Amino acid sequence: MSLIVQKFGGTSVADREHVFNVAEIITKTYAKGNSVVAVVSAQGDTTDDLLEKAREINADPSKREMDVLLTAGEQMSASLLAMAIEKLGYPVVSLLGWQAGFVTSSDYGKARIKRVEPERIQKELDKKHIVILAGFQGINKYDDVTTLGRGGSDTSAVAVAVAMKADLCQIYTDVDGVYTADPRKVKHARKLDVISYDEMLELASLGAQVLNNRSVEIAKEYGVELEVLSSMTKKPGTIVKEAGKVEKLFISGVAKDEDVARISIIGVPDRPGLAFKVFSRISAKNINVDIILQSVGRNGTKDISFTVARSNLKDALETIDSFLPSIGATKLVYDENVAKISIVGAGMETHPGTATKMFEALYEKDINIKMISTSEIKISVLIDIKDADKAVSAIHDKFFPAD
Amino acid sequence: MSLIVQKFGGTSVADREHVFNVAEIITKTYAKGNSVVAVVSAQGDTTDDLLEKAREINADPSKREMDVLLTAGEQMSASLLAMAIEKLGYPVVSLLGWQAGFVTSSDYGKARIKRVEPERIQKELDKKHIVILAGFQGINKYDDVTTLGRGGSDTSAVAVAVAMKADLCQIYTDVDGVYTADPRKVKHARKLDVISYDEMLELASLGAQVLNNRSVEIAKEYGVELEVLSSMTKKPGTIVKEAGKVEKLFISGVAKDEDVARISIIGVPDRPGLAFKVFSRISAKNINVDIILQSVGRNGTKDISFTVARSNLKDALETIDSFLPSIGATKLVYDENVAKISIVGAGMETHPGTATKMFEALYEKDINIKMISTSEIKISVLIDIKDADKAVSAIHDKFFPAD
Repeated sequence: MSLIVQKFGGTSVADREHVFNVAEIITKTYAKGNSVVAVVSAQGDTTDDLLEKAREINADPSKREMDVLLTAGEQMSASLLAMAIEKLGYPVVSLLGWQAGFVTSSDYGKARIKRVEPERIQKELDKKHIVILAGFQGINKYDDVTTLGRGGSDTSAVAVAVAMKADLCQIYTDVDGVYTADPRKVKHARKLDVISYDEMLELASLGAQVLNNRSVEIAKEYGVELEVLSSMTKKPGTIVKEAGKVEKLFISGVAKDEDVARISIIGVPDRPGLAFKVFSRISAKNINVDIILQSVGRNGTKDISFTVARSNLKDALETIDSFLPSIGATKLVYDENVAKISIVGAGMETHPGTATKMFEALYEKDINIKMISTSEIKISVLIDIKDADKAVSAIHDKFFPAD
Repeated sequence: MSLIVQKFGGTSVADREHVFNVAEIITKTYAKGNSVVAVVSAQGDTTDDLLEKAREINADPSKREMDVLLTAGEQMSASLLAMAIEKLGYPVVSLLGWQAGFVTSSDYGKARIKRVEPERIQKELDKKHIVILAGFQGINKYDDVTTLGRGGSDTSAVAVAVAMKADLCQIYTDVDGVYTADPRKVKHARKLDVISYDEMLELASLGAQVLNNRSVEIAKEYGVELEVLSSMTKKPGTIVKEAGKVEKLFISGVAKDEDVARISIIGVPDRPGLAFKVFSRISAKNINVDIILQSVGRNGTKDISFTVARSNLKDALETIDSFLPSIGATKLVYDENVAKISIVGAGMETHPGTATKMFEALYEKDINIKMISTSEIKISVLIDIKDADKAVSAIHDKFFPAD
């Protein structure tokens, strides 16, 4: 007998039919003799509807009150799912964040789970109840309700799996697993049976947003095995686990990230400390810098280029503008029409020539590389955004030739 | 500086416009230097919508899960009202039943408030916050959410007024006070400035449903002064307080109750103990009996007639049928086409001839009286339902002649 945590997103419980589909997945798992804790998001568009209701009244409400409003969404879906399970004749109880012991930090709207106090959930499991948890929510030290931010229900699921020492944490979503590339864009994309936490994290951070990153980080830290699968197809999905337990794939996936912009500071005097000055000021504004490239310029100067998320571009430019004269640089330029294409694979380091093979694929399609960055399990290139989809297909077909 | 509790029903917060109207009432009260605790119901049709959502999934869900679902309604309205008050620039915090210390019994769907633990509310008032409470809800000893049943937000308001020793508890509703008769039916109906708890209770139990009865009982027990008023007209309403502080009106109102049916047991042998047998069996089924009339029948038998709520009629008939032969009665008859008309007034006992005046009014309109019942502050008659509105007008005009 195992303890299985199952998480269902908003699409999976959007209406009556979907709610019963999920209720069947849960009760079938329970009927096999497992203990089941199911974490559920708000139904379909509920969260957006509530945001709109709030906006009509106050365009800038306090985050505290917004959390009180939004947590009602998961409260409704959790109780409705429990009612569906009652209808199927199984013992069930729904629990809200504060009832289930989800203690979080106090940052309303983006709280972090500090711990899950497992007593109440354990008590219900001991009574042979199926436990339905309202995801995305918790309680802070002031006894106020908090939300975990976007993708928070994934984190709820993994956190409860950690606290209850679950044997498996299944994340049901609208795709049936993790693919070697976006299957809507790349014809020969293959579903992976298994992937390591680190590869999953790299893929997620590259825009292949199947799992919330924070939830993968927690799963990795505590060694909780995840499975990404579809609530509709009822086929096995992709298992995410420790690298040591995963056969090292040469390449696990090709991903595209279009939320990226390049900034170049031209004519920086070639003096020590200036790069530090630039990046410390930018990070002080909470802006993440990704690929960095420093090139030799003319007349004893250098050019510093780097990428940021497109949403941070304006902030980053303003910040740099404010100290540009003080470092003696001559010009600030930027480019929004770029995309980052990456290959990820835990086996990469033991296969020389991986980068060459990637660059060859791009060369064959006449695609120009603007920047390059590499890590142990990832190679990223910055290219023109108009070439992005073509580049993903070319690279994917090079590493995963059609059978 | 006073502490004022204000309660707003679902119609009062139905949409954006109404929410801001209520926010203005609250902030004006606060701006005069008062502490304000506002109790709010779910917006407009929210509760009915949630009931319908549940019904689609499970026609007979557990009451526990139903309460989890329904309490989301007040959670949403409380946070939206708080956002409106923030928009007006006042300090505010919304609290759910479990946060505000509403400890209830465990009967989901119709829980009774056992106590209100005032610490959290007091802390917020000390910080000069306006406190918005989600009405209709509490928490039981299992740490589960409960609802108080229909009209429960009135009870929430009175209970918090008791716990916080409020100076006044204002119940905002869609009528602007308590009238001498239903103003939609009786032309000369007058608004009362003041009425005693007991008169209010009698009127409410007679179908003039302005205030939830349980809330008036609690207000009476703890001496909390109530005011019934409209959130739209912004005029003074009707004060409900102790009889000793109310100038005794001859008659405070005329009310009609159509939720009534008459049952007659014919030919009961004239032996001691049979009436006891009848009514103990009926009360064991949790059926309330109102007017009772025993008449002498033929051949040493008697007829026992009484009234019950129409919703209890079927249950009552089945119960009596089951023991009718054992008491030797000959027949069971009933009449659903009846209405109970009552006059209520704390001053009645000091004015002889009140009943005569009431019967005269009915006689003048040729209305037949089927049963009569009297108490210290009430006289009720049972008449044919087709005469009900005519009877109310005739009695009202007799006691409150047009100016």
